[in-house]
Amino acid sequence: MTDDRDPAPNAPANTPVTEPLKSHGRLAVSATLRPRELMSETPDLAGVWKAKVITLLPAAFPGILGESLTGKALKDGLWQVEPIDLRIFGEGKHRNVDDTPAGGGAGMVLRPDIMGKAIDFAQNGAPVNREEWPLVYLSPRGKRFDQKMAQKWAGARGVTLICGRFEGLDERVITHFGIEEVSLGDFVLTGGELAAQAMLDATVRLIPGVLGNADSIEDESHSAGLLEHPQYTKPAEWRGHAIPEVLQSGHHGKIADWRDAQSRAITKARRPDMWEAFEAANPPTSKKR
Amino acid sequence: MTDDRDPAPNAPANTPVTEPLKSHGRLAVSATLRPRELMSETPDLAGVWKAKVITLLPAAFPGILGESLTGKALKDGLWQVEPIDLRIFGEGKHRNVDDTPAGGGAGMVLRPDIMGKAIDFAQNGAPVNREEWPLVYLSPRGKRFDQKMAQKWAGARGVTLICGRFEGLDERVITHFGIEEVSLGDFVLTGGELAAQAMLDATVRLIPGVLGNADSIEDESHSAGLLEHPQYTKPAEWRGHAIPEVLQSGHHGKIADWRDAQSRAITKARRPDMWEAFEAANPPTSKKR
Repeated sequence: MTDDRDPAPNAPANTPVTEPLKSHGRLAVSATLRPRELMSETPDLAGVWKAKVITLLPAAFPGILGESLTGKALKDGLWQVEPIDLRIFGEGKHRNVDDTPAGGGAGMVLRPDIMGKAIDFAQNGAPVNREEWPLVYLSPRGKRFDQKMAQKWAGARGVTLICGRFEGLDERVITHFGIEEVSLGDFVLTGGELAAQAMLDATVRLIPGVLGNADSIEDESHSAGLLEHPQYTKPAEWRGHAIPEVLQSGHHGKIADWRDAQSRAITKARRPDMWEAFEAANPPTSKKR
Repeated sequence: MTDDRDPAPNAPANTPVTEPLKSHGRLAVSATLRPRELMSETPDLAGVWKAKVITLLPAAFPGILGESLTGKALKDGLWQVEPIDLRIFGEGKHRNVDDTPAGGGAGMVLRPDIMGKAIDFAQNGAPVNREEWPLVYLSPRGKRFDQKMAQKWAGARGVTLICGRFEGLDERVITHFGIEEVSLGDFVLTGGELAAQAMLDATVRLIPGVLGNADSIEDESHSAGLLEHPQYTKPAEWRGHAIPEVLQSGHHGKIADWRDAQSRAITKARRPDMWEAFEAANPPTSKKR
């Protein structure tokens, strides 16, 4: 990747933030942002995949993503993360970011004016084309995150993730910016941060060079539309259970067939929905399974 | 809840770990475990909901769960988490926990003998009845985690979560202990830790007292089988967008009807699968919607 994030020649120098942002063909530029010095910002690595995360818990990043393979890749500059502290855009002595829901009800809602400023800041300099840089709100009302979405994000230049807390975002922010709502699954979290981290983990590991070993990506669950076959390792016998004989045969063809058959059987039994989609995409041939 | 986790009177004092554990009606007790002193253990709060997490990254817990509402509840003793360092059960100078896959292939597989010892340790003293204490392996091959599962876990006395890394667990461990495989979703993570944290967040917030406000649980997405209605807060007008009039009317009945209609419309549009299930469970009455 090359760094071509400088404003396009035809980009207007100052887009007033009181007007809705147009969505394609130029970079978002805004003149009313707080000075960058206020932000606890990490240095920008030119052309390196980047996650910007708008959150009330900036210290939670990178968190576990700073460990293990994703952590090594972060230190090696294969990806980067910039937490953006929503509180900094808050108002008044207490830097308030939320208020009571219009129409009544429990909890608090994140204010559109505060969140709007944080989004302006985050998108400043990021490609406006959402294919190149998805703008996402983590929400249980969204489209469910899956391996395909992880692949898509990994192929973009970066992503901006908005973490809700409390009762969530003012709906006007979502429609105004055309934000994509994405859900980690059919359950509710206290905030979007863990959803963001899980999605970033799934995405970052697909960036070339992050995992040592590209083979292990192709084999695994959800990549080929099937669940992964069982795995075994030493010792050959454990608490009375032996490793299946075929795996000890040294016969590569038989091992591959056995694993394929196991993958199919497990998928069929556990996930009829996945099996149906797999069969539709891979019509059975004359070869016996 | 009261603390009745002491061994039942009829529990055998020493169950040899070389035999498969029976699954019901007594507590699992094992004599061959490493001394508890070796573990970086937190004090056990009697009768308090507990998560035991077998992991190679014990320092990652509680992580974000130590912040915000779940963190306050952790400090207040409303729930507890015990990370169990798998490395402690490793063998040799380097405390090895993994080996190459039987039959060949990329990556490494967690050894059954090492993981077996860690599970023996974790389950020692925990109820053997899996309804009371689920034993779960975080795996993309598992049943998908959802709000119902979170509710079930929150109603148990605790849960043991096994975090995989690399190519995962030796299959014999899963069948030997009758471990339930649970997936965060149709995507692959570098390890189970973020899945464990997301599931714990979704679960812990349902434990009475953790959220200030029970109302906000009942209203939210996935609780009533519908996605949540849009939320709005001050200011009344923002960047040219106004809050819907009905929410400013002060008419509680109309507001409730509007929110209900919005919930239904959003669910129908975004999640036809959820809408179908909701309609089946709630046949339409003569009342117009």
